Amino acid sequence: MSKEKTNQGVEILCVGTELLLGTILNSNAKWIAEKLALLGVNHYRQSVIGDNHERLKSIICEASNRSRVVITTGGLGPTPDDLTTEAIASAFNSKLFFRQEIWEDIKNKFKSNLVIPNNNKKQAEFPLGAHIIPNQLGTAPGMIWTPKENFTVITFPGVPSEMKKMWEQTIKAWFHKNYPSGNIFISKTMKFTGISESSLVQKIPDLLEKKNPTVAPYASLGEVKLRITAKSKSIKEANHLIAPFENEIQKRCGFYFFGNDEQTLPSIIIDLLRKRRETLSVAESCTGGGLAAALTAIPGSSDVFLGGVIAYNNSIKQRVLEVPFELIDKHGAVSEAVARAMAKGVRKIFQSDWAISITGIAGPTGNTLTKKIGLVELCLEGHNFNKSIQENFHSHKVRSDIQKLSVLKALDKLRLSLLNSS
Amino acid sequence: MSKEKTNQGVEILCVGTELLLGTILNSNAKWIAEKLALLGVNHYRQSVIGDNHERLKSIICEASNRSRVVITTGGLGPTPDDLTTEAIASAFNSKLFFRQEIWEDIKNKFKSNLVIPNNNKKQAEFPLGAHIIPNQLGTAPGMIWTPKENFTVITFPGVPSEMKKMWEQTIKAWFHKNYPSGNIFISKTMKFTGISESSLVQKIPDLLEKKNPTVAPYASLGEVKLRITAKSKSIKEANHLIAPFENEIQKRCGFYFFGNDEQTLPSIIIDLLRKRRETLSVAESCTGGGLAAALTAIPGSSDVFLGGVIAYNNSIKQRVLEVPFELIDKHGAVSEAVARAMAKGVRKIFQSDWAISITGIAGPTGNTLTKKIGLVELCLEGHNFNKSIQENFHSHKVRSDIQKLSVLKALDKLRLSLLNSS
Repeated sequence: MSKEKTNQGVEILCVGTELLLGTILNSNAKWIAEKLALLGVNHYRQSVIGDNHERLKSIICEASNRSRVVITTGGLGPTPDDLTTEAIASAFNSKLFFRQEIWEDIKNKFKSNLVIPNNNKKQAEFPLGAHIIPNQLGTAPGMIWTPKENFTVITFPGVPSEMKKMWEQTIKAWFHKNYPSGNIFISKTMKFTGISESSLVQKIPDLLEKKNPTVAPYASLGEVKLRITAKSKSIKEANHLIAPFENEIQKRCGFYFFGNDEQTLPSIIIDLLRKRRETLSVAESCTGGGLAAALTAIPGSSDVFLGGVIAYNNSIKQRVLEVPFELIDKHGAVSEAVARAMAKGVRKIFQSDWAISITGIAGPTGNTLTKKIGLVELCLEGHNFNKSIQENFHSHKVRSDIQKLSVLKALDKLRLSLLNSS
Repeated sequence: MSKEKTNQGVEILCVGTELLLGTILNSNAKWIAEKLALLGVNHYRQSVIGDNHERLKSIICEASNRSRVVITTGGLGPTPDDLTTEAIASAFNSKLFFRQEIWEDIKNKFKSNLVIPNNNKKQAEFPLGAHIIPNQLGTAPGMIWTPKENFTVITFPGVPSEMKKMWEQTIKAWFHKNYPSGNIFISKTMKFTGISESSLVQKIPDLLEKKNPTVAPYASLGEVKLRITAKSKSIKEANHLIAPFENEIQKRCGFYFFGNDEQTLPSIIIDLLRKRRETLSVAESCTGGGLAAALTAIPGSSDVFLGGVIAYNNSIKQRVLEVPFELIDKHGAVSEAVARAMAKGVRKIFQSDWAISITGIAGPTGNTLTKKIGLVELCLEGHNFNKSIQENFHSHKVRSDIQKLSVLKALDKLRLSLLNSS
């Protein structure tokens, strides 16, 4: 085991019984891990421990023998359950000392309340020599303390917004100064849809074996991501390493690729339509507003997205969208003919350039002999343009997944149509 | 430090460099932690370690000296990065042996593919004496292995769906048989809206100090939860401990309380309307389908939710919802008068018993001198019923939060109106 490496390492220690009970997700560890990776800091271990003095003290002792830095979150509050600072101090046989200036600051934060709980006094107690990390958003400051040579402990409150602000204002600079790693890690994420993870991976087996940058696939519902991560001395150099990989992947994967990093299918659609100065409306049955909500989640979408009709009920399909009764009667509400009439209807009402309609069986009820749960009919309507798509998202999928997949499929089909007609 | 206690404990060890890079949230640890709590099993520590043979081996050795059981996730795949089984074996100086029957099973799973990767062969290798946990959903079986007295290691793949299925089918029973704890933990969650966490907590300071059951508050956007957790010998006894707390909290908190556990505001609304045999439609501007999507997420909502109109654009408000131009011109699109006309309009089109309208400024653009980002006008319309509500969700909130809070507020106002008129 490479000792010298480990002793240069950083650990994350999250304190809180609620994490051991599985009440909350450990989003703090993920956030800090990501920040450390971007700083190029080695990070070998994460731990979670409960609000227990002896166990906390013991894990701090352990960590101080194998790592250079331990970053803790949680246990800085005013209640008797909050034990992080005192357990750390006792791990190094140190006492806590009351600091008047911190107490004044805490009292100021209670301005509006008449009674200042005496409990909060413990939040002003720190070991000698500890450097304070101010907390603008709450009453719990953190500390940077070096109790012995080559070991520093950094404490944060467990409230994510407070921890993040304190990190950005103080810790980032501390790492840059005290922990020059020489390397940084920069990642770029490429997003794909309409293709399975295994099929995508088969297009790039050689790239998946490269060491710098590395390429790693991640699949989620209706989407596959490739994360390209470069290790280098500078952001510029990292981007220089990433660019040829990105080009090569795009070349091999074609239209399955739809965007990078923060881009989403709805944001891509809004951008494409805005460039074309065209508008969109939607008619939704089984997705019940999910398509519209995905589009309106994008700031500024009102430029191009006019709105839509949620026609969950057949009589609404007839009365509002003017779907002829005969079509529903003859083909059923989930049919190409009805999807097409819905798209035509909503496009007429909203006078939009484009319209999307979705009608399907999202389950858990609605299964029939000929039409199973997961059957979805989509239609795109434009100027002299009409495209019908039948999809079958298997019936073992849950309602919310069928709804989400239908929305993604509709957006992707419109994306492809817009790219093909430009 | 109470040694005998710790040696009875269980640890969770999640293996994967992607966790150390902060690429993904550790949802497996949360899920297993929650399951252990329900089984009443003591659980003192969680760790995350990368795909590194020496570090994995070292943490397994450590854990075997302080805990009774270690549950691992991840590192069971076919690639060279997947090292969990071999690192565990080497921690106890054991070798791996190929098991033909597992290999046959893995090959069967590749039925549809022509070439079976030889890589997968390592997924059929286990230490002597390891009991196999079958994996119906994937190619990576887990194991239950007791390499030394009073220490068992249980391995799972990192894919959540596979791990969960394996847990339910095998591990639950194993814990019941091998790990009788005497006590179980049962939780009930009560949900509140329209009240802040601090105001809610002020109503029950005495209950928050109780030891069995305990009461813990958790706040999220637009909602506060109280989790009541009882420790007892049986589910019946636990429920008996919880019931008086539940009643007392409900008595003190009144209508702020809206539901338990899996219930949501949309599910409560659907249930209330179904009981009354009444229907609902919606007209949405700034929430753009979010209200409708929240309602249609509930299975069976089509009984009562007829649909709606997303009128993101003023001309649509006029043309589809028949909002008079003069109202928009005089009061603006975000006004009580327009919200009321939208609700009336949609209720007329859909011929529903109830209608909700929402119009507001979700940002990040749209701020004016008199109407700021975060201003939202809601209206409820029913038979001889009309209620207008103005809300001001501050402009420092992001677009998605303003949209979500508007949806929750609209649903809560309808809930209160339904409860008051029943």
